[in-house]
Amino acid sequence: MSVTSRPDHEKTAGSGKSNGHAAPPALTVEALFLGPKSENKAFFRERLLAIIEDHIHWRADFNPADAALVSAEDMRAKAFVHTLDRTTEVLEEVSSRLRQSADPWFSTRYLGHMCSDILMVANIAKMSTMLFNPNNCAYEASVATEPMELEVGKDFGRLLGYDADTNWGHITTDGTVANYESLWLARNLKSFPLGVKSACPDLVEGLDEWQLLNLPVAKILDLLDETKKNGTFAKALAASARGRGAGGGKLGKMIVPQTRHYSWEKAADILGIGLDSLENIPVDSLYRIDLEALRAALDDCLAKKIPVLSLISVVGTTEEGAIDDVAAIVKIREEYEKKGLSFYHHIDAAYGGYGRTMFLDEEGNFMPYPELLSRLCELDVEKSGVAFPSETVWSAFRAIPSADSVTIDPHKMGYVPYAAGGISVRDKRILGLVSYSAAYVFDGKDIELNLASVILEGSKSGASAAGVWAAHQLVPQNISGYGQIMARSLGGARHFVKTLETVREFDVAGKTIVCLPLLSEPDFNIVCMAFNYKGNTSLAKMNDFNTKIYAASSYSGGRMYTEDWITSHTVLETASYGNAPLDFIKKFGLPESEWTAVGQVVVLRSCVLHPWMASTPNYPQAWQTYVEIMKDKIERIVADEDLHNATTA
Amino acid sequence: MSVTSRPDHEKTAGSGKSNGHAAPPALTVEALFLGPKSENKAFFRERLLAIIEDHIHWRADFNPADAALVSAEDMRAKAFVHTLDRTTEVLEEVSSRLRQSADPWFSTRYLGHMCSDILMVANIAKMSTMLFNPNNCAYEASVATEPMELEVGKDFGRLLGYDADTNWGHITTDGTVANYESLWLARNLKSFPLGVKSACPDLVEGLDEWQLLNLPVAKILDLLDETKKNGTFAKALAASARGRGAGGGKLGKMIVPQTRHYSWEKAADILGIGLDSLENIPVDSLYRIDLEALRAALDDCLAKKIPVLSLISVVGTTEEGAIDDVAAIVKIREEYEKKGLSFYHHIDAAYGGYGRTMFLDEEGNFMPYPELLSRLCELDVEKSGVAFPSETVWSAFRAIPSADSVTIDPHKMGYVPYAAGGISVRDKRILGLVSYSAAYVFDGKDIELNLASVILEGSKSGASAAGVWAAHQLVPQNISGYGQIMARSLGGARHFVKTLETVREFDVAGKTIVCLPLLSEPDFNIVCMAFNYKGNTSLAKMNDFNTKIYAASSYSGGRMYTEDWITSHTVLETASYGNAPLDFIKKFGLPESEWTAVGQVVVLRSCVLHPWMASTPNYPQAWQTYVEIMKDKIERIVADEDLHNATTA
Repeated sequence: MSVTSRPDHEKTAGSGKSNGHAAPPALTVEALFLGPKSENKAFFRERLLAIIEDHIHWRADFNPADAALVSAEDMRAKAFVHTLDRTTEVLEEVSSRLRQSADPWFSTRYLGHMCSDILMVANIAKMSTMLFNPNNCAYEASVATEPMELEVGKDFGRLLGYDADTNWGHITTDGTVANYESLWLARNLKSFPLGVKSACPDLVEGLDEWQLLNLPVAKILDLLDETKKNGTFAKALAASARGRGAGGGKLGKMIVPQTRHYSWEKAADILGIGLDSLENIPVDSLYRIDLEALRAALDDCLAKKIPVLSLISVVGTTEEGAIDDVAAIVKIREEYEKKGLSFYHHIDAAYGGYGRTMFLDEEGNFMPYPELLSRLCELDVEKSGVAFPSETVWSAFRAIPSADSVTIDPHKMGYVPYAAGGISVRDKRILGLVSYSAAYVFDGKDIELNLASVILEGSKSGASAAGVWAAHQLVPQNISGYGQIMARSLGGARHFVKTLETVREFDVAGKTIVCLPLLSEPDFNIVCMAFNYKGNTSLAKMNDFNTKIYAASSYSGGRMYTEDWITSHTVLETASYGNAPLDFIKKFGLPESEWTAVGQVVVLRSCVLHPWMASTPNYPQAWQTYVEIMKDKIERIVADEDLHNATTA
Repeated sequence: MSVTSRPDHEKTAGSGKSNGHAAPPALTVEALFLGPKSENKAFFRERLLAIIEDHIHWRADFNPADAALVSAEDMRAKAFVHTLDRTTEVLEEVSSRLRQSADPWFSTRYLGHMCSDILMVANIAKMSTMLFNPNNCAYEASVATEPMELEVGKDFGRLLGYDADTNWGHITTDGTVANYESLWLARNLKSFPLGVKSACPDLVEGLDEWQLLNLPVAKILDLLDETKKNGTFAKALAASARGRGAGGGKLGKMIVPQTRHYSWEKAADILGIGLDSLENIPVDSLYRIDLEALRAALDDCLAKKIPVLSLISVVGTTEEGAIDDVAAIVKIREEYEKKGLSFYHHIDAAYGGYGRTMFLDEEGNFMPYPELLSRLCELDVEKSGVAFPSETVWSAFRAIPSADSVTIDPHKMGYVPYAAGGISVRDKRILGLVSYSAAYVFDGKDIELNLASVILEGSKSGASAAGVWAAHQLVPQNISGYGQIMARSLGGARHFVKTLETVREFDVAGKTIVCLPLLSEPDFNIVCMAFNYKGNTSLAKMNDFNTKIYAASSYSGGRMYTEDWITSHTVLETASYGNAPLDFIKKFGLPESEWTAVGQVVVLRSCVLHPWMASTPNYPQAWQTYVEIMKDKIERIVADEDLHNATTA
């Protein structure tokens, strides 16, 4: 690949990464990370030093005749030496604070938030680029890295199954901002026909407001083209939400599952749509959007002639890793569009998006279900602990490209350093509705001249983009690259669940403890679980018990560095989850009345991102070790409670 | 300072950085950066290696009995070696792309965008923290770095002159997002009294809508407290813009100077206020907001009973570095508030904010004008080329704490790597209007448990925060720290202007060329300039000439690494600037009719951030070298034009 090459938009998925080598040996996951014991330290250190040297000499060699501006004499001055000493002190303070309290994401003992070790190549590429400090807001300040960001955008499109000719995407600071950006696009799009009605009524002759607010997305984008042709585009845009404001409810409902991330509440607020417009749909017992409830909400909108601005589905919920039945949702959208109710469909796959790599073959084709199962088997199932996704999950991933846009975060399942979120849109014409520069910049390749003029953010790190780009160059976004890591991660989660189910009950300090996973077959790689005293029927007591287990297994238990097992927790409340958790607490023998009275259940939550358990010699038995650690912690908690009860009795 | 210490909110400005040493020797600017010739490479390399080693051993020492999961045998496998080889190839590709086309920010030859070399301590601290990869969205994922971010927020407050007990601030991904966040705060605040009217009418009895929309900021925050006390807060909030939507113009005008950054247009669009509500006020010949025009606009709003949501002033405009007369604006606000027209006042000091460090003494006191001049003189004027700020600029910086919030970007004049913007708010009670968690988290220190619940963004880089924190620890935010860098930067700009004025005319290739700076005394450190053929009265020809000079002095001229002088450019158009540039083009002998006909002037734009010219042995004569380089470039352009004219004649 030429160093001066511009983004090659015609590349096919998964190809072009081998630099001309025919059929290279497969990538090894073990060589991708620094490792839980810094196993790859020699390589990491050597490469990082090499790129630092590259930069140091680059500076010196820029106009080599220029003299140095800091002399040897300067460097011997007392104040100079003092400044370096203070620099060292500050850096040591940073290092010691981190070593004291940073989470050991890299360790197999960390099974808490959506965090893991990160790809060496991404971290070194980002560090290397930080020395040059490009700003991807404008091409002039990021000649090297803005094209990388747009290449990554194209990678997103391929990975998600969008048409290569029409899709567009880029890196955002995080998934929350990507969600805002998608709603900005949706809002300006849905209000555009009202602008056209005002600017060029002929184009929408005969359509009433209801019909204008229910034009399908593709039709609105055609309308955009027509106004550009006849010169009324700017006037129509000025008469849409962009010029007139969000309109306080006129654009209708934003429909979301109850499991949506809270950034969607913030989005409704920030984008001026208002929380009143947010319609939360209950989830089923698998924490996926309840399709019947969704239909009922849409029927209600249809009956009352309330438009629907957008529907958000979630691929990988924050707390449970649940994956909405996107295939069914796509069908429902088609069905209601025929009834005259049309809406924008965005998928929040901030967490689950990279999961789609597991379903793509080396040519970028989405594999049929039997082929997928067979390819997963080839990945050394016994060692890697592959889990087979259900057919519903498979069909959900297959249906993703039917959505209008998708949030997908490299800093989650893309294994790159914070901060790097992402968005991918199906039809780049939509950028015209949020652009802040002359028309030509969003027609074709000139879009890259000033990225900040078509996205939400302004100044942005070119180094972050280089990190993601390097990760994508090294690790193909298909089953032979990221797919291997996904398979290990999902396999790990499945084996953790099985281990918990095998344990089920154990005795500590004279008490029997029941242990249950929230879901027997989680859609993705998050394992929620809870513990209870056998026979206890008080939900309050059970919640208190699990809160104590969490406290003993997290930062709140003291210095992070002394922990031997770290998890996170979450609280499933009726306000957010309706009665979805009821089945779960019933399994512990708690009566429904307890749920009604308390209305929330505390669960431990383990995101199993790291690929390392598959490297242990006795996988999957290794999972059992964590249960043993938990038992120890629980034993101490039970003993403390007994002592406390004895003292206060 | 203890490694486990929490943010100390009581610290006074500029103190607490010396780690207990009495009167340490002053910091030396030369020891703060890697340097234009990598002069400090030995220190940089050694420190970076040390922190990498810290991290490598930290991993290995976490539960030391745990076995390594990558064995020596694994490492000899063909696929393992191949994976490392590919990693190296990808990293070399990143490095070569950067060395080919990255801007040499570090060099004195780079005088383009708002970029410069960055502080070593910030870059190393950020890199070091990236290895740990904390996420400042929640305390649990950033026990070390979220407190650093909030300490930096307190630093902003001290630097800007806010009351230590009431202010709050944090790091944003950039200034654009900080601007959105400020407008989110302003919008939810200004609409809150309408919510109170609906939720608890007794509290605002007797006030009509006009009065409700004109309550002073402090009164609204008192109202917030009262609704919290009487339990109607949530209901009132739900009936404000947060629940009901932005309201499409009901909240009134957003008043901005014409020179505002285009993120304000985006903000009006994204926040659902609509571009129709944006009122652009002309600027005067110094590119500061025209105070009479501002008064006229406010009078008009008063006469027509149109509320004013917010007024934005700019401290350091993007193109000219102009500083609005904030002191006068603060008085105007007080005056109109008495007339019944009250509005939120935000200062966009994304660029100029750190400039305030030059005005603070070591105790954090804003120095009287004569003391400032005397302290600046002590900074070795001859060598550093200090420029004395005008009294208007001094009073503008003094008046900053009268604003309700301020955007201030560390990645601009804070000399830290991208991406790191910032916001500071005067009265933290306002966070209640944008918070997405239970009430207790925004009362007092618990706010830090879940940062993402009170800010616009979600996941965010803890490494960025550590970089800014380290910079603030090392370099005091007063005249003896950052103030030294500011003085060198502003002094550089002033000397560049003087050099251009001394040159004024020169002969190349048989033609006389006129050269003029846009402003004789720029408020800050940006120098705009233009060239013209002596006697040429065509603005189109002059614009074409300057466009060619820009092309010959920027990335568009070819490989960045071969450039010997690099600048940026901008186009001052009537659409954005009214007639502000008219005086400038008249100085070139162009008639007013040319301005009316063409309506735009192309100027070269040099942001003089780097502190290095002060280190040259023959400062300020060194600036003359750039004029010589420009002359060479112009000579080639003139010769080419002559050749072209001869060929086509």
